[in-house]
Amino acid sequence: MADIPARTEIGVTTGPIRGSRKISVGPLGVKMRAIDLEPSSGEPPLNVYDTSGPYTDPNARIDIQAGLPNLRRQWIEARGDVESYDAREIRPEDNGQLGPDRSGGVPRFPNVVKRPLRAKPGMNVSQMHYARRGIITPEMEYVATRENLGREMLAEYVRDGESFGAAIPDYVTPEFVRDEVARGRAIIPNNINHPESEPMAIGRNFLVKINANIGNSAVASNVASEVDKMVWAIRWGADTVMDLSTGRNIHDTREWIIRNSPVPIGTVPIYQALEKVGGIAEDLTWEIFRDTLIEQAEQGVDYFTIHAGVRLPYVPLTAKRVTGIVSRGGSIMAKWCLSHHKESFLYERFDEITEIMKAYDIAYSLGDGLRPGSIADANDEAQFAELYTLGELTRRAWDQDVQVMIEGPGHVPMHKIKENMDKQLAACGEAPFYTLGPLTTDIAPGYDHITSGIGAAMIGWYGTAMLCYVTPKEHLGLPDRDDVKTGVVTYKLAAHAADLAKGHPAAKLRDDALSRARFEFRWRDQFNLSLDPDTAEQYHDQTLPAEGAKTAHFCSMCGPKFCSMKITQEVRDFAAKQNAGAETFIAAEDAEAGMAAMSELYEATGRELYMGAGGREHD
Amino acid sequence: MADIPARTEIGVTTGPIRGSRKISVGPLGVKMRAIDLEPSSGEPPLNVYDTSGPYTDPNARIDIQAGLPNLRRQWIEARGDVESYDAREIRPEDNGQLGPDRSGGVPRFPNVVKRPLRAKPGMNVSQMHYARRGIITPEMEYVATRENLGREMLAEYVRDGESFGAAIPDYVTPEFVRDEVARGRAIIPNNINHPESEPMAIGRNFLVKINANIGNSAVASNVASEVDKMVWAIRWGADTVMDLSTGRNIHDTREWIIRNSPVPIGTVPIYQALEKVGGIAEDLTWEIFRDTLIEQAEQGVDYFTIHAGVRLPYVPLTAKRVTGIVSRGGSIMAKWCLSHHKESFLYERFDEITEIMKAYDIAYSLGDGLRPGSIADANDEAQFAELYTLGELTRRAWDQDVQVMIEGPGHVPMHKIKENMDKQLAACGEAPFYTLGPLTTDIAPGYDHITSGIGAAMIGWYGTAMLCYVTPKEHLGLPDRDDVKTGVVTYKLAAHAADLAKGHPAAKLRDDALSRARFEFRWRDQFNLSLDPDTAEQYHDQTLPAEGAKTAHFCSMCGPKFCSMKITQEVRDFAAKQNAGAETFIAAEDAEAGMAAMSELYEATGRELYMGAGGREHD
Repeated sequence: MADIPARTEIGVTTGPIRGSRKISVGPLGVKMRAIDLEPSSGEPPLNVYDTSGPYTDPNARIDIQAGLPNLRRQWIEARGDVESYDAREIRPEDNGQLGPDRSGGVPRFPNVVKRPLRAKPGMNVSQMHYARRGIITPEMEYVATRENLGREMLAEYVRDGESFGAAIPDYVTPEFVRDEVARGRAIIPNNINHPESEPMAIGRNFLVKINANIGNSAVASNVASEVDKMVWAIRWGADTVMDLSTGRNIHDTREWIIRNSPVPIGTVPIYQALEKVGGIAEDLTWEIFRDTLIEQAEQGVDYFTIHAGVRLPYVPLTAKRVTGIVSRGGSIMAKWCLSHHKESFLYERFDEITEIMKAYDIAYSLGDGLRPGSIADANDEAQFAELYTLGELTRRAWDQDVQVMIEGPGHVPMHKIKENMDKQLAACGEAPFYTLGPLTTDIAPGYDHITSGIGAAMIGWYGTAMLCYVTPKEHLGLPDRDDVKTGVVTYKLAAHAADLAKGHPAAKLRDDALSRARFEFRWRDQFNLSLDPDTAEQYHDQTLPAEGAKTAHFCSMCGPKFCSMKITQEVRDFAAKQNAGAETFIAAEDAEAGMAAMSELYEATGRELYMGAGGREHD
Repeated sequence: MADIPARTEIGVTTGPIRGSRKISVGPLGVKMRAIDLEPSSGEPPLNVYDTSGPYTDPNARIDIQAGLPNLRRQWIEARGDVESYDAREIRPEDNGQLGPDRSGGVPRFPNVVKRPLRAKPGMNVSQMHYARRGIITPEMEYVATRENLGREMLAEYVRDGESFGAAIPDYVTPEFVRDEVARGRAIIPNNINHPESEPMAIGRNFLVKINANIGNSAVASNVASEVDKMVWAIRWGADTVMDLSTGRNIHDTREWIIRNSPVPIGTVPIYQALEKVGGIAEDLTWEIFRDTLIEQAEQGVDYFTIHAGVRLPYVPLTAKRVTGIVSRGGSIMAKWCLSHHKESFLYERFDEITEIMKAYDIAYSLGDGLRPGSIADANDEAQFAELYTLGELTRRAWDQDVQVMIEGPGHVPMHKIKENMDKQLAACGEAPFYTLGPLTTDIAPGYDHITSGIGAAMIGWYGTAMLCYVTPKEHLGLPDRDDVKTGVVTYKLAAHAADLAKGHPAAKLRDDALSRARFEFRWRDQFNLSLDPDTAEQYHDQTLPAEGAKTAHFCSMCGPKFCSMKITQEVRDFAAKQNAGAETFIAAEDAEAGMAAMSELYEATGRELYMGAGGREHD
């Protein structure tokens, strides 16, 4: 079976995820995926979190020229605190100084909103603002339903995990969401000009989220392929997508992406601002940066990475590093500070930026421009100096009820990871942490999705709320479609491993369902319950391609004549037939007389197994 | 460039690892790889641990018909405690009941040793025995040199790590090796009948090791392809190889592998014993098992997995598990115990097994037959009951000065991993732990090298001495050549991440060298210093194939016009030119007057950078 499902004639990847069916839960119609299991299992369908939007819904009509339906428009307008106004005019430099020539291949989106929304004068439309006034918004209700994965409150749930001080509830109520957002421990990034988005929360008391980065191609073959980068990433589980495009057509490309995105979109506005000054960092000004924020705010960008913690005095702290400053935004600001020998305008103008954020409900993602780019530079003075400043800025943003998350490293050996989390929680008042990896060694280029997946799982366990993916091409080249999928699935499994270890009440259900399927040789169920059913089935079929092998009670590791799992079933049958528990069994061991009797009993239960060729001690 | 290097006409993969040169260190000629760096770097070559044997030495003559040179033969004989004797005769059932027909395609190895070695009566040839008598063997000296990677004792080494109570020295002396082996904290698995092996140590105060499993093909196309499975695994870093073959030709295949292996070979003898009784577990006897041990001991197997901890009373403890018993050896013994309702003959005859082990210096790898096969079953009563028994058996083996390591899980969520390590250390007196993964979630079949790589890195950090690899095909099918490489490299990076976190003094040198190369755009050095130079270069070339791009001072992430690393160099130059440290810089911030002056200084240093298209916020 092909790896990429059916319908691609409309330019983006559509069709259901193998083995899943789209469901709507609750009055708000929260979308999830239900995985039906074989009737023989006697198990109900398992619901899983779904980031893929309408693209995996066979009943949805996908038209990227029209964009997605405006799920949140009514909710936003019903609050009565927004106004529409004439949008800032799009200028040639917004698309990379190409002038009116659009030869880069990206046409203007046909349905651009001419009159975007913003808060009425004196108003604040951030979810944090509502939360702090005690208002439970539909966005919060949506998040609550979504985080519960459609399950009912569990009557007899035994918590098993170590959450390092997180406060994960057994069941997520809208009031809990409101409280977390009010405290600043979670954010719901959703610009009022991106009403197409399905609300989601980032916070350490919710499921751990992942982000995928995408960027424009130097020469876009067609706009659908640009949109499909986002569609492909969310298909496999990206909770948010950052558009890190530079150069040509970035405004128009972003418009297409946002209009078609059911997940929050993040950007690094300084990238576009830099384009507007011809790539000369020293020529950046507050006015140009501000103009870029408005431009992107009106398009609907949901969170902005702002490197306001790269302060002038911290720049020389990087001079003795092995790899200096490796963040692009960080180095732009370092260069600006150095050349003018002035404090960063992002830091100086921070409160003015916050004014913009709250008028559109854009969340801060406070950038770690001084993050370590090598094991040698981890947890150094420069890194933590910036972190403390991000803590100061968090409080200043919260003073205006603006949502904040904090970006984190980078390259960190395992023994220094927890210090990052602990310091971030303390310095930033539990604002959600959003980390890149961290990579736990520098020596495996080509495998950095794994070096970083290790760090990501660990820091997710310790409390990081969102993990920014790394692809196999990190440090080496630009990721292709396969790399993006590998990166997303790797981070999805790291996030899930973190949820499990934190003791998230919904997490283990899926592991258990898959393991039961594995034990009972329900191969289809095993594939369908996995993070990547296509690859699981493909790998299985490489050894046992016949359709019959999908229902066979054996696998290629041990072959048909021997199976350790089958023996376990015998153990169970035996235990059941003798109608006795383990205690009896153990007691019997001491009684020589009992042994012979039990041996006979075993003979009576049948010794039908044949064992033989082809084995592995698979686990 | 092709992924697989030059010479394969002799049936196995040979040719140097890209960018590495083979060196011999010290009086014993310990083999390592030296990676020469570009002259512009001014850096000496970096030595790395090398498991690949003569196959990567362009000066070595490889002839698998002859086997490898007998490095250790003289050392063994010089001790005067061994005798040669007529080997047990090879019987048809040793090769899977095929009878004299060898149609499976594996010829007999041409140079089979007819008179193997064993300890003289009353003697004990284990490294532990020598160690406890205060003898430093050449094997221990070899290990010391090897672990130091050819470096001199570091004068000013600052320890940076968290070793959880390990006692890693700054510099490994032969006396340290002796002491570790004497205490049972490390083993040197090397059967006296495998004199071709290059001694290596497994212990938590040494570099973390990895094992790769291989198995015979149902129909071998030619014997070289069987040998090449081992050669391929050690090329990428497998420190030991387990031959888990079953079915036909297993005796002969094993002979070919051992005679050509520079790394210790492990097996699970119960697999072959089971073949000898036609696959009927109940028909296994101590006599058949013992015969198999002798057979494999004479061939030179270096360590045996013995599932002697699967005791009768523990079997029913698995009845309520989600995935029961998933270990093949464990389930064989469980079935035997159940059907006879008798205590395991492996447990009952343990001291007799130990007598055999010490006559050949075979190390125990005490198998965890009751390891959990799912997250749900982690750290349960059955698992730990077996572990405590393994501790008891460790002490019994040590009573006879026989080397022991302990096998560990399996599937374990992150928050339960450390408990495994802590309990193992306590129960087994710090005998080396040898774990499979553990997998940190069950939901990602197809990616289980990663779900387990996460757990492997963590448990390696906590103290596991050797990590058994998992390939992407785990749970789904049989690994191919690419899968084996992916598994090995993934585990190599996990082991290295563990070494870094433990603060191993030699580990960080490679990260730092690679990061300096990265920072200075020495692309070739970056590739050569990586765990997989072929893949690193291939990924780079997919975006920038021109040869010139290997020396260009830019990468595909940011393109030629902008580079954050270049900006860092400007920060350094600036700091150097103003001849002032960070303190001056920071102080200057407060002086408005100073700012303008510094800005002028910056202008004078030149603002030559152009920034622009193509960026990513790569880290």
